[in-house]
Formats: sequence, structure tokens, C-alpha cells
Amino acid sequence: MFKKILVANRGEIALRVIRTCKEMGIKTVAVYSTVDAESLHVKFADEAVCIGPAASKDSYLKISNIIAAAEITNADAIHPGYGFLSENARFSKICEEHNIKFIGATAEMIDRMGDKSNAKATMKEAGVPCVPGSDGIILTYEECEKVAKKTGYPVMLKASAGGGGKGMRAVWKPEKLKDAWDSARQESKAAFGNDDMYMEKLIEEPRHIEIQIVGDSTGRACHLSERDCSIQRRHQKLTEETPSPFMTDELREKMGNAAVKAAEYIKYEGAGTIEFLVDKHRNFYFMEMNTRIQVEHPITEQVIDFDLIREQILVAAGVPISGKNYTPKLHSIECRINAEDPFNGFRPSPGTITTLHAPGGHGVRLDTHVYAGYTIPPNYDSMIAKLITTAQTRDEAISKMKRALDEFVIEGVKTTIPFHRQLMEHPDYLAGNYTTKFMEDFVIEKPKTEE
Amino acid sequence: MFKKILVANRGEIALRVIRTCKEMGIKTVAVYSTVDAESLHVKFADEAVCIGPAASKDSYLKISNIIAAAEITNADAIHPGYGFLSENARFSKICEEHNIKFIGATAEMIDRMGDKSNAKATMKEAGVPCVPGSDGIILTYEECEKVAKKTGYPVMLKASAGGGGKGMRAVWKPEKLKDAWDSARQESKAAFGNDDMYMEKLIEEPRHIEIQIVGDSTGRACHLSERDCSIQRRHQKLTEETPSPFMTDELREKMGNAAVKAAEYIKYEGAGTIEFLVDKHRNFYFMEMNTRIQVEHPITEQVIDFDLIREQILVAAGVPISGKNYTPKLHSIECRINAEDPFNGFRPSPGTITTLHAPGGHGVRLDTHVYAGYTIPPNYDSMIAKLITTAQTRDEAISKMKRALDEFVIEGVKTTIPFHRQLMEHPDYLAGNYTTKFMEDFVIEKPKTEE
Repeated sequence: MFKKILVANRGEIALRVIRTCKEMGIKTVAVYSTVDAESLHVKFADEAVCIGPAASKDSYLKISNIIAAAEITNADAIHPGYGFLSENARFSKICEEHNIKFIGATAEMIDRMGDKSNAKATMKEAGVPCVPGSDGIILTYEECEKVAKKTGYPVMLKASAGGGGKGMRAVWKPEKLKDAWDSARQESKAAFGNDDMYMEKLIEEPRHIEIQIVGDSTGRACHLSERDCSIQRRHQKLTEETPSPFMTDELREKMGNAAVKAAEYIKYEGAGTIEFLVDKHRNFYFMEMNTRIQVEHPITEQVIDFDLIREQILVAAGVPISGKNYTPKLHSIECRINAEDPFNGFRPSPGTITTLHAPGGHGVRLDTHVYAGYTIPPNYDSMIAKLITTAQTRDEAISKMKRALDEFVIEGVKTTIPFHRQLMEHPDYLAGNYTTKFMEDFVIEKPKTEE
Repeated sequence: MFKKILVANRGEIALRVIRTCKEMGIKTVAVYSTVDAESLHVKFADEAVCIGPAASKDSYLKISNIIAAAEITNADAIHPGYGFLSENARFSKICEEHNIKFIGATAEMIDRMGDKSNAKATMKEAGVPCVPGSDGIILTYEECEKVAKKTGYPVMLKASAGGGGKGMRAVWKPEKLKDAWDSARQESKAAFGNDDMYMEKLIEEPRHIEIQIVGDSTGRACHLSERDCSIQRRHQKLTEETPSPFMTDELREKMGNAAVKAAEYIKYEGAGTIEFLVDKHRNFYFMEMNTRIQVEHPITEQVIDFDLIREQILVAAGVPISGKNYTPKLHSIECRINAEDPFNGFRPSPGTITTLHAPGGHGVRLDTHVYAGYTIPPNYDSMIAKLITTAQTRDEAISKMKRALDEFVIEGVKTTIPFHRQLMEHPDYLAGNYTTKFMEDFVIEKPKTEE
């Protein structure tokens, strides 16, 4: 087993990793930028090394400084957390070259799964369903018709150079295809000076549902069930839950099997996540693979009594997994608490926390690196805490979340707590009836006297 | 279901009950003495009524004030927590007379199980093993010999008027009985002016292991497995765990069955605990029954994913239980954090908490009514928090507890955190090798520079 692990990250995930290392009797090294000296991940590690100034490129992304920190502290492994260098093939390779175990994917694996089109091609080979459509650019309208027929309506025409919805057309019937083709190309030409088009199946009422997998060095993998991450704002997840309210036992088995097949096909080692889009007919399509721990991993831990960071460390040390697939026995929800003003377009709200009272009691878990007196620097992600509630049913987990949100006091900065309170009262959320479009229509009610 | 519950208690258990009521959509009324106005149980309740000055007899034990508070707030039920009026037959009866549901045992049940000799007689009738011995006073040495033979050696001779170990003799062999009889009587006569003696079987290497039961109005009961509470100081539990490291599947089945039999025999309604002494041969003997929720109930909740307060409320509202017995799937430990100085004979240390940082993360639960800035009054029990860790194995739960104790910062008052840290390192504790005598030999090491 490793003797000392350097955690190449900051904030709650660095603390999360340090906690498990402590429990496993492994020494820890924190790294920090000058503005993070007062973070709990620094206080709770056995050793801490300053690796540079606030700017990530000069500290948390600065490979040479991190490797130097590992070498001077004699760390025999590096845990990268999520974000920063966690899916950086070069970093993984450099660790290996320095005989430091990278607790994550190999450079080769990151390269293979990090590039979206590479990943999709690999998944197709493995027999995992991908969103059907054209193979690259469609040259003529005749080809467009053929691809649409093969793909099956509804389809989405997309401008290659597109962005912001420009040059995009949803087409529900064959007789509407020609108009869409012409107008989308025209629009794309006007907007981007290029009218190259491709086509994908339109995913109706899409949900983002991901499967947690763990693979080991023997090539075996298992899945730890799903997380529904459909509640997103500008592709940033706000809250997640497991099981997905949309899930059926049959679909879980199919998606779980597909994820395990994918992981075993690529001989994936460690914890990873296969993200799928699921349409209203419960068809599912591979979206991407994350070759790292996810922010939302705690909800999986809660429902299957499993420490995923421990599992990552064990697998990296060569311990084989049990190979058993897990099905949730409980229901768990995570709310990401960000230092943002939900009444002002979720604008970041860095600053000093003057008061902090953590919720507690039955079924409540809080992962946070902040405390009263802590100053949130403006340089990084605005997430300051993950509040997780777990209960026997979804209704109970929601009631518990409402209760815990009510108890949670953070003063000195604005937070997304009021947003989550409103979300937990929303009829569509309560009914489990939401897609990735949910936030587009969500209207935040301003309190009469703003907090 | 109840619309509004008054919680006739203070501190963490009042908050515990309020939390579950909130989650169940039931309104809550807190009561408080003048010194408790700033406690979280007051802040988090929907309504709060001051019921008198600091002295318990004038507030938390003052039945008329509590009933008046329930009547003016229109509460339809009262939850008594533990301690105070939770096992007061008169209070239970008065609640009933005022058409307020008492979420606890009936007056009759409290009377029956509250008196130790009544309870023992009832348990004997129900076929539950009790500590064998004489039926009351032994009049002659001849009778003493007979009782000793029937009871089986070793036996304990006890002075009826005894206390502090005076007039007590452990007798391991028949040939030592006469000497013990004579000297114990002499000692008792000298100390108490009375030489009445009785006899009980000597429980070798006793462990305090209790079984949590729940019964409903249909007369059915089930057990939720055991808690080992052997680590005690002057009959005050310091830490508890489930499963007991001494437990076997066979013993759990036997003790669980005995507890269910006892509960069903007396038609017990609600949550209760049957406390047993277990000797080194795994014989178990009824000690007493607690007709209320226990301080240490969270460890049971953690290992069986069960909210016991919710269950109490449901049963009180007439909802039948599932009737299923539960076996722990995980391991959970509770450390009672008291405002006491462990380096100074556990002397109470009331005062103002200047800094509080709560531990968190995977497998950590904290139940507390205190916060930074809170002043612990000197009038009540010194427990200020219950720290609970849960993991797949005992070793992991202990590692997690050590980690959580390290993270737990309370400044301004002395606490028992340093004691628990030492306990979690003690070889006998780590080996699960402890009895109710454990603390008699436990030596607390003073830190070189006291905190």
C-alpha cells in the first residue's frame, strides 16, 4: 500500500481524499496556491507545500511544481481529484516516468477517452449505443435525406461551425427536411461563413444519467448504479440524485451492462463514469466518459455504503475489486452549494464567511473545506460545499434536504442555498419529472426582503 | 397524523425530535428554561415557549407548565425525549387526561417496568433470563448455602443496605462461603447497622449489551439488534457501538428473541430498550427496561437505515410496524462529547464555546445543539454533542472516528474529545476486549502541553 499520497487539488475534493487517506493510515501531502493557505485541505494534511500563486496555470496546473512537491516530500502516489490535472494525459505520463503512481487513468486511456470522437468510435466498437447520425459532414441534400431516414425522425441538423443555437434545426417529419436543410445552411453561411452540416438523432426530453464504474488491473469491471444529473445550468450540474426517478430495473440493468462492457472493453482501471443521454422512450446513448472521480460521487457512496476514494486507492495499489454490481438500497440527493448569488444570475460571490453553521443529524452529510472566518478566493470554482441527504425513499430524502438547507447558515457571502430551497419545492422536481432543459424554464422567485 | 408536537426536553434530543418532525411535515413547539433561550432546539422549532427558570424542577420537570405550553400552542402530542419526564408515569397519565398523545409508554407500562423488582418479576413471568439468586433476604447460613448451590458459583453476597462495595463478597468456591457470610454481615452491621444479606450470581466479565425493540398497538414487536454500552464511567455511558464485538449470530438471535418475547408479553407500544448483562460465557441476564428513546439510538439508525424517532411517532399515531427483525449490515460507533475536563476527573466545564468546527464527510454524523458563541449552562447534563461514525467494518468505523475526532474543534470549554482519542487507541478497545469494568483501569495520559 502507498505510504504517502500527494493530493494535486484544492478545496473539498482535496479534503475528501485526505480524509480517506487518514482513515487508511496513509500519510498525506497537500499542495496549495498562495491564496489557499487557509483552506482546510492544507490544515488537515500531514504536510503541505505551496506550489505557486493564485492563477491555476502557475500552481494547480503547473506539473513541474507538483512533481517537485511530490519528490521533496517523498510521496509515492498522486491523487488528482477532479478538474485541474485529473484528465491530463501528460501529467499521468510524467507521474509514471517519475515512479509516482497516478491514482487515475493511464495517459493512453485518457487520450483514448478524452477525445470525444475517439471515445465515441471506441464505444461503438464495444457495442455501446451512441447517438446515431451522419458520419461527419453531409455533402448533398440527397445524402441528408438518406441519413435522416437511417437515423430515424426526429433528427437534428447542426452546422459544423455552429454555436449558440445558430444553424440548428430540429426536424420531426420528412416533409420538413428540405426547408430545414436550406434555411440552416443559409443561416450558418451568414453567421459563420461556412455551411457544412451534420446530423444527429434528436434526443427527446433528454436526461443526463451516468453510470459509476470501477475496473481493476485484472480487466474486470463492475457498476455502482446510476446518478441522475439532469438538473444543470449552462452544463454545470446543480444537484444530482440516485436512483434516477426515471430509472427502471430493466433500464438499469441495460445501462449498467453497457457501462461494464465499455469499461472491460477498454480494460479500464480505477473509478470512472460513463455519461449517457436517455430519451423519453428510455433509449440511452453514450455521451462521454470521465476517467476520474466525479463531484457527485458521494450520493453513490451513500446508497451503497462504499467509499469510492478508498476503492480508487485500493485499485491503484493493485487490489482486485469484488466484481459485484450494486443496486441502490436507499435514495440520496446532493445539492452543490456555490458562493453565487442565485437572485443575480448566479454571479460568483467570493469573500469572507463570517458565520457558518453546518446542518447535521440523521441522514445528513456535509463535505466542505470552508469554515467561519474563511475567505473564498475569486480565482477558482465557486463550489464551497456539497450537502448530501440520504433516506429510505426519494420523498424522505427531499424532506431531509429541505430541513438541512433550512439549518445551513452561511453569512458573509451569497450562496445558492435559496435556489436549492426553491428547487426542492418545485412540482416538476418533486414529481421527478425533469430533463436537461429544466433550468431553462426555472424562474427563481426573489424573496420579498432579500437575505 | 399529529399536526403539532411539543418536545418536552432540551439540547440535542429536542433538536433530534424537531428535525424528524420537520421532515414529516409536523409542526413543532420547543419549551425552554430561561438559560436555554439560545439553544438550537429553540431556534429550529416552529414555536417556542419559556417554561421557567434554570432549575429543572421549575421548568423541564414542571408538568403543569409543560401541559400549559401544549395547551396554549394547541399541540396534539408530546415527545419527552430521554431523561426529565420521559419515564414519569404521572406525566404520561396527565397528558392522556388532557387528550395530548404522550409519545412514549403508558403510565401503567412505566409503573410496571420502572420499578426494578416489578420489572424483574414480569420478565421472569415472560421467560426472560434474570440474574439468579435469593428471593429477597437470606435469613440463615443454611439457607445461604442452599441458595448458593442452586444459583451456582461464583456468587455475590450483598448487604441489603449496602453501597460503595461495603458488605459485598464475591465467593468462588463453597468452602469460602462461610467466611464470606460472616465477614460481610459483620461489615454491613458496622457500616449500616443492619446485616440483612441477599445473594446474586456473580456475572463474570460483565458486558452491558442492550436490545432495541419497537412494539405497536397490535401487540407485535420486533428487535433492531444490539448496542454494546459497556464502556461506562460511574454508570454513565461514554461510547457505544453496534454490533457488539462480543456478539455472535447465535447470541443475537437468542437475545433478540428474548427481547421481542418480553416486549410482546407486556404488549409494549413504541420504542424501548431491554438492557442485559452478558457474562464471559455469553449467558445473558435481564437488567432493566428503558421505556423511552436512548441517547445512543443513532448507532442503531446508522446500521439499519432507520429513523427511530419517526418510528416512535408513527407507532404513537397507530401505524403498525413491519414486524421485521433487523441485523446490522454496517458498524457504527458513538462518542458522547461532554463539556468536561478529562484530565481533571471529568469535572464539568460549562462556559461559552468560542470556536466550533464540525467534522464531516463520508460516514460521519454529528448530533449537537451547540454552536460557536453558545454558552453551555451549568445546570444540566454536560453532553454537548454525539459524534457517530459508520463504516463497513469495526476497524474502519474506528479509523473514521479517530479522523473525525481530529477534525472536531471546540474552543472555549474543555471537552472529552481528548479522552475519546485515547480510547480509540487503547489496545483492549481496539481488540473489542472490554467489560463494564474497563474504565476502572483506564489511565488517561495527560498531554505534555495541555490544550
